[in-house]
Amino acid sequence: MNEKMTAMSSQRNPVRVALLGCGVVGSQVARLVHEQADDLAARVGAPVELVGIAVRRLALQRDVDLPDELFTTDAAALVARDDVDVVVEVIGGIEPARALILSALEHGASVVTANKALLAEDGATLFEAAERAGRDLYYEAAVAGAIPILRPLRESLAGDRVTRVLGIVNGTTNFILDRMDTAGSGFEEALAEAQELGYAEADPTADVEGFDAAAKAAILASLAFHTRVTAADVHREGIAEVTASDVASAREMGCVVKLLAICSLSEGPGGGAVSARVHPAMIPRSHPLASVREAYNAVFVESRAAGQLMFYGPGAGGAPTASAVLGDLVTVARNRLADARGAGESSYAALRILPMGDTETRYHIELDVDDKAGVLASVALAFAEHEVSIQTVRQEGRGDDAQLVVVSHRASDADLAATVETLRAMPNVRDVSSVMRVEGEGE
Amino acid sequence: MNEKMTAMSSQRNPVRVALLGCGVVGSQVARLVHEQADDLAARVGAPVELVGIAVRRLALQRDVDLPDELFTTDAAALVARDDVDVVVEVIGGIEPARALILSALEHGASVVTANKALLAEDGATLFEAAERAGRDLYYEAAVAGAIPILRPLRESLAGDRVTRVLGIVNGTTNFILDRMDTAGSGFEEALAEAQELGYAEADPTADVEGFDAAAKAAILASLAFHTRVTAADVHREGIAEVTASDVASAREMGCVVKLLAICSLSEGPGGGAVSARVHPAMIPRSHPLASVREAYNAVFVESRAAGQLMFYGPGAGGAPTASAVLGDLVTVARNRLADARGAGESSYAALRILPMGDTETRYHIELDVDDKAGVLASVALAFAEHEVSIQTVRQEGRGDDAQLVVVSHRASDADLAATVETLRAMPNVRDVSSVMRVEGEGE
Repeated sequence: MNEKMTAMSSQRNPVRVALLGCGVVGSQVARLVHEQADDLAARVGAPVELVGIAVRRLALQRDVDLPDELFTTDAAALVARDDVDVVVEVIGGIEPARALILSALEHGASVVTANKALLAEDGATLFEAAERAGRDLYYEAAVAGAIPILRPLRESLAGDRVTRVLGIVNGTTNFILDRMDTAGSGFEEALAEAQELGYAEADPTADVEGFDAAAKAAILASLAFHTRVTAADVHREGIAEVTASDVASAREMGCVVKLLAICSLSEGPGGGAVSARVHPAMIPRSHPLASVREAYNAVFVESRAAGQLMFYGPGAGGAPTASAVLGDLVTVARNRLADARGAGESSYAALRILPMGDTETRYHIELDVDDKAGVLASVALAFAEHEVSIQTVRQEGRGDDAQLVVVSHRASDADLAATVETLRAMPNVRDVSSVMRVEGEGE
Repeated sequence: MNEKMTAMSSQRNPVRVALLGCGVVGSQVARLVHEQADDLAARVGAPVELVGIAVRRLALQRDVDLPDELFTTDAAALVARDDVDVVVEVIGGIEPARALILSALEHGASVVTANKALLAEDGATLFEAAERAGRDLYYEAAVAGAIPILRPLRESLAGDRVTRVLGIVNGTTNFILDRMDTAGSGFEEALAEAQELGYAEADPTADVEGFDAAAKAAILASLAFHTRVTAADVHREGIAEVTASDVASAREMGCVVKLLAICSLSEGPGGGAVSARVHPAMIPRSHPLASVREAYNAVFVESRAAGQLMFYGPGAGGAPTASAVLGDLVTVARNRLADARGAGESSYAALRILPMGDTETRYHIELDVDDKAGVLASVALAFAEHEVSIQTVRQEGRGDDAQLVVVSHRASDADLAATVETLRAMPNVRDVSSVMRVEGEGE
């Protein structure tokens, strides 16, 4: 450390930070602010000082050693203090986080948050409050943990046009699907293993049913397409229905099953439309996302000029998430000192949201049918009726019945759903045992 | 596009941009500024206007259709115009680029450049001029083309501590090594194919000998470690000596050969030391960098809190590089409107540069030795003498002689070099046929 620089940085008034929450992420934020104090001062241009930490219970044992007097249970009073420059919110959930962030902005603080659920449900309220207050609202840690993805979307690609984002943004489900693929486990077995290793919560609903990924998809789509997209706009399917047999079928096709957050731009009149969806899908093993193993996250971005980019790293965990929070904290603190503001919300494009039925992709469908003459023809006819074009069919007799595996060309979700409905009603079709989308093969 | 927003953006005075160079990258920059005009205006908050393009010859046929009156051969006069807000330099090379950038800054313009050679040779002069002028100097396009890597290092990881950067930052050499790996080609054959496909220049020296990668390594190390590192500080070895047999040996070890730019921090007294080097190395096929194919680039970053991150994408080409330039242009233009400045050079750590001899890694060494008793023992002794610990040895008799393949534990470059010198002088050692570093296996 260059001593002159440190001395200069320390002479300035400190940037005063209030921390809301001191759990897995918050304690790591506090630790880094303390341990990296010299570096932070040099990077910000002034010392960064933690002036208060709001917690639910004072008595809790913490991972980091912090002076008792920093802790308070009165978060509302902390964010309203007029000597606080930046509020870091890592409580999560909708309330009281929303009220606290709004109060912080009203009282003149800038805000750094990791709160994906709140941003995806009601980001607009927060962005408007930040705009009114003329303060920063940064949230890199809300999507894909430590991976810098929001800043590249918001700033690096600001002169380009993003056309599609494919993300593995939930580590729990990626761990489960990876185990199903590599160890041949069933869903329940892989989930149990994830729980044992601490990758999945006792109640895994938010992860397994895709709620967590859907919130992140809404945030990614909003940034990528300069359009407000909320969690309610995101079509969501989880991985609980994915079977060992689906994973094996994917393998036979040279694919792997991943839970994807897919945000895409369909060009058209009025600038086009955007869609955001979360569902399991088969992707080719040659796709860069296919090699994302265990609980890692990755976001694959396609844009007009840059082409294909991928951002990879740990999607969760205390220290990685804290790294993202600190990166934002440095920027926001620098802006405070310069009396400047980073780019605010960008929703100027205001594109319409494409209904799920109108989104298009390819499908992998498995049918259990009677093994007799004419069945394949009648199945093919059902697809044709709904204008779903078939790319390949594989038929395998199993004595009395046969298995049909159909892979379609690109079709709309509505046409595919209608086809499946027709198939289910056909007397020779015993079961439509699996329907899965096929992604990542280019347009 | 929201009409009100566009109208508001258009009312403001435009941000006036001068472009230096209109070749592969410059013409794409001009095209994007024109085609994305509405989006750029919305993102910047004011229209972005191209007011002049400096070229060497006016008569040249260009890829984009631009008004003749924009073109000039007098670059010096263009950068000195007092109505220019931002100068975009995509000429490359040291002069006249340096003089033009310095003049632009002195005349009050902010600068966006893609000039890796200049930044790596004399970045300090440019950064100091930008500091004096109170203007921005942005250069995302200088490293790894379209991949946003400098901004994440500079901003997203600003609260973390980067410990190592491993980059595949030259597409030409990655293409050649990938062909050698997948098609079993020799170096000359793969180079010829790269030239045929336009991935390598007629004179491939800058790529093949590692000069291009070394410039990028200097820029990455400077940003990662907040220390001035120039191209002259970077140890450089190219890929011309890599043989089909090296690639086959790597494959046997479960590795692949890549040309890596390696920047690392060795902690120690006074904050530690940094090293930057470019050389071919074997990396395990399970490493995320191993799957970077063809002419793609990727940068793998290890940091204390975030862990392992990777950034992947096209490392060159007109449109991808222009995407990175435009991203910088939007930021710099926004800063101009806000009368603000982004984070400038960060060299506060001022760590010392570790001499190459002191850097440590593992080595893969192939020897051609006499096939007789005691040779293995004497070879092992040579390693022990220089304190290079052996991890594995494989011996294969070939009649009169034998091949020995030694993989070492971590050893310093100086100790390894001394070992090789001793080996070469031994009467029973006919040849040290290959020495290659093994990277990417964690510390």
